[in-house]
Amino acid sequence: MPQLRKDPIIGRWVIVSTERARRPGNFVTPKENSFVEDECPFCESRESKTPPEIYAVRGKHHPHPNTPGWQVRVIPSINPMLRIEGDLTRRGRGLYDVMSNVGAHEVIVETPKHIANMADLEVDQIKLTLETYILRINDLEKDPRFQYVIPFKNYGWSAGGGKIRHSRSQIIATPVNPWRVKEELAGAKKYFEYRERCIYCDLIRQECESKERIVVEQEHFVAVTPFASRFPFEVWILPKKHSCDFAKGLNGLQGDLAKILKKVLLKIKVGLNDPSYNYVIHSAPFHKRTNTSDWKTVEHDFHWHIEVMPRLTHVAGFEKGTGFYICSMPPEDTAEYLRGVEV
Amino acid sequence: MPQLRKDPIIGRWVIVSTERARRPGNFVTPKENSFVEDECPFCESRESKTPPEIYAVRGKHHPHPNTPGWQVRVIPSINPMLRIEGDLTRRGRGLYDVMSNVGAHEVIVETPKHIANMADLEVDQIKLTLETYILRINDLEKDPRFQYVIPFKNYGWSAGGGKIRHSRSQIIATPVNPWRVKEELAGAKKYFEYRERCIYCDLIRQECESKERIVVEQEHFVAVTPFASRFPFEVWILPKKHSCDFAKGLNGLQGDLAKILKKVLLKIKVGLNDPSYNYVIHSAPFHKRTNTSDWKTVEHDFHWHIEVMPRLTHVAGFEKGTGFYICSMPPEDTAEYLRGVEV
Repeated sequence: MPQLRKDPIIGRWVIVSTERARRPGNFVTPKENSFVEDECPFCESRESKTPPEIYAVRGKHHPHPNTPGWQVRVIPSINPMLRIEGDLTRRGRGLYDVMSNVGAHEVIVETPKHIANMADLEVDQIKLTLETYILRINDLEKDPRFQYVIPFKNYGWSAGGGKIRHSRSQIIATPVNPWRVKEELAGAKKYFEYRERCIYCDLIRQECESKERIVVEQEHFVAVTPFASRFPFEVWILPKKHSCDFAKGLNGLQGDLAKILKKVLLKIKVGLNDPSYNYVIHSAPFHKRTNTSDWKTVEHDFHWHIEVMPRLTHVAGFEKGTGFYICSMPPEDTAEYLRGVEV
Repeated sequence: MPQLRKDPIIGRWVIVSTERARRPGNFVTPKENSFVEDECPFCESRESKTPPEIYAVRGKHHPHPNTPGWQVRVIPSINPMLRIEGDLTRRGRGLYDVMSNVGAHEVIVETPKHIANMADLEVDQIKLTLETYILRINDLEKDPRFQYVIPFKNYGWSAGGGKIRHSRSQIIATPVNPWRVKEELAGAKKYFEYRERCIYCDLIRQECESKERIVVEQEHFVAVTPFASRFPFEVWILPKKHSCDFAKGLNGLQGDLAKILKKVLLKIKVGLNDPSYNYVIHSAPFHKRTNTSDWKTVEHDFHWHIEVMPRLTHVAGFEKGTGFYICSMPPEDTAEYLRGVEV
C-alpha cells in the first residue's frame, strides 16, 4: 500500500510504494523496442481487456459501457499510485509525517484506434480529450479528500510512456498539492502582492511583444519557450485571458486549445524526429472549499498553463543533486526552429 | 557563452547555453557501450591530453605539473558550464533576470589508474580525493564572485558519467545558490526558528534510535536511506557531530568519511550490479562574507551531508511536471537489503 511521506526538511511530499513484491533485482534496464502491438488493450473492441470504464464519450447508438463505439474512454489505472478507498489518516512519527495514499489514478484513452502520438489525432479528437479531462476534474472535485488533480501525458518509452503505443493520458487526484505547483503558487502570490498583477499575464504580454520565444500564437492561446527553460524545446501553452483554473476557465475554447496543442505536438514530432515527451497541466488547487489566507488571491495571481517537455537529454547528477538545470539550447533558438517546422 | 537565467515565477536560476553549435539534429540517442578505454586522457602518463592541471597531489620526487607521479589531479573541465573570466553583470529584461555564467568548473581525477568506480579505490585514495575537494573549495572561496561550490560525481552513462570510465568527480563554483540547496537552507532555518535545534541533528538522532533506515553506522558518520526518499536506494551520509560546512567541518575526519563513503558505494555496486549513480555534497554557502539576516543562524541550522543517488529508474512526466516523486521501493527495505550486502 503506497504511502505519502513528507520530507521534514523542505516539506515536499513523495509517494513511497510499500509493496514488497518489488525486489532489488527487478531493476532491469528498459529495452527500447519491446512493445506489444497486436494485442493492445486500449484499442476498440478489446474493452474487456481493461478494468471497467469510469466514463466514455459514446455515440448515441452505443450507450453500453465496456463495448465498442466510443471516442474517448476513461478507465482506472492498472498500477495505481493512489487508491480511492481509505481515510486520509495523517500521522506523525517523530520528525516525520505520513499519510495514506488516498487519491485517484485514471487513464484517458484518447482514441479507439491504435495511434501512438496525440500529434496525429484529429483536432476534434483532442477536443474531446480535453473535455473529458474537465469532466473528470469536476467529478473528482466533489470528493472532499482531494486537494489537486493533475492531467498529464507520458509519450514514448524514455518519458515513462510504457510499452504500449496507444495515445493516452492520465489523471491523478491527490490529497496534497504537488511540490512544483506549490512553488509556482507561492512565486505567483509573491509577485501579485508586490505588483498587484498576475505574473503569467505579464509574461504573456512581454513574450507577445518580443516574439523571440513564440512558437505558435493564436487568438486565445500562445505557445512559448520559457526564458529560463529547464530542458531544450520545453514549451508552455497559456491562455491569453487570465484564468487560474483550467477546468472552469476554458469556457468554450476547448477547440482552440486542441488546435494549438496539436500544432505544438506536431512541430515537435516532425522537427525532432518523433521524440518522447511529457506534458502536464498546472491549474489552481481546489481552493474554494478552504478559507485559509493562502488562497485569498489565487484567482488573481495564478494562471493555468500546459508544460510540454520533449525528452531529449537526461538529467545528470549535477542537476538532480542541486536543482540547477542546464539547458543545452537557448529557448530563442528552439522557438525559431519550431516556428520554421512546416506542419 | 552560457548565461544564468532566473525563472521569474519561482525564482530558480538555470544555466542556458547560448552556443549556436548545438543543432536540434544533434540529439542522438546515447549508446550504452561506446567508451574509449585504451586512450583514456585521465590515466597517468597521458597528462598532455588534458588541459594544464590546476593542482595535483604529487609525491616528493614528481613535483612538476602535468607529468606522471600524482595520486589525484585537478584539471579544468573541457566543456565548462561556467567560466572564470568575466564580470558578474546582472541585468534585467522586463520580467527576466540574466547573469553571465561566471564560475568555475573543474574535474578531479581520483586515481592515476584506469579504475572506473570510486567504490573500487583504496580508502587512502578516496581520502586524498576528499582532501582535494577541501583544498579546491577553500581556494575558490577566495573569489568574491562565487557564492557556492558543489562537489559532485556522475558515474556511468545513464547518470551523465560520459563515455570514459575513469573514476573522477567535478567541482562547480557558482555566483548563485543552487535551487535544491536553497530549499534545504530555508526548511532548516524554519525548523531552527521553531525548535532551536538543527533538523538534521534531530533526524540523525531519530534514525540512530529506530535503526530501520540505517545502511552503515560508524563512530563519526552515519549512512541512511531517507524517510521520504525520492529514488529507490537513495542514501545520505551525514556527520554525527553538527557542522554546517563540509570543507571547514571535516577536521581530521577525512579518513573516516572515506571509509563510510567507500562502504556505501561498494554495497551499492555489489548489491545492485554496478549501477550508474550520482552523488553530491550539500554544504552551507559562503555566508561569512555577507551580512544578511538570511545567514544569521546557518551555522546552527544547516548540516552538511552527501546525497548518493543510484540511477535505477527514470523520472517520468508526472514527476518532472509536478515535483511529486514516486519511490518504488520503501527506504526501510532498501536499507535492510544494503545492510545485508557483504563487502
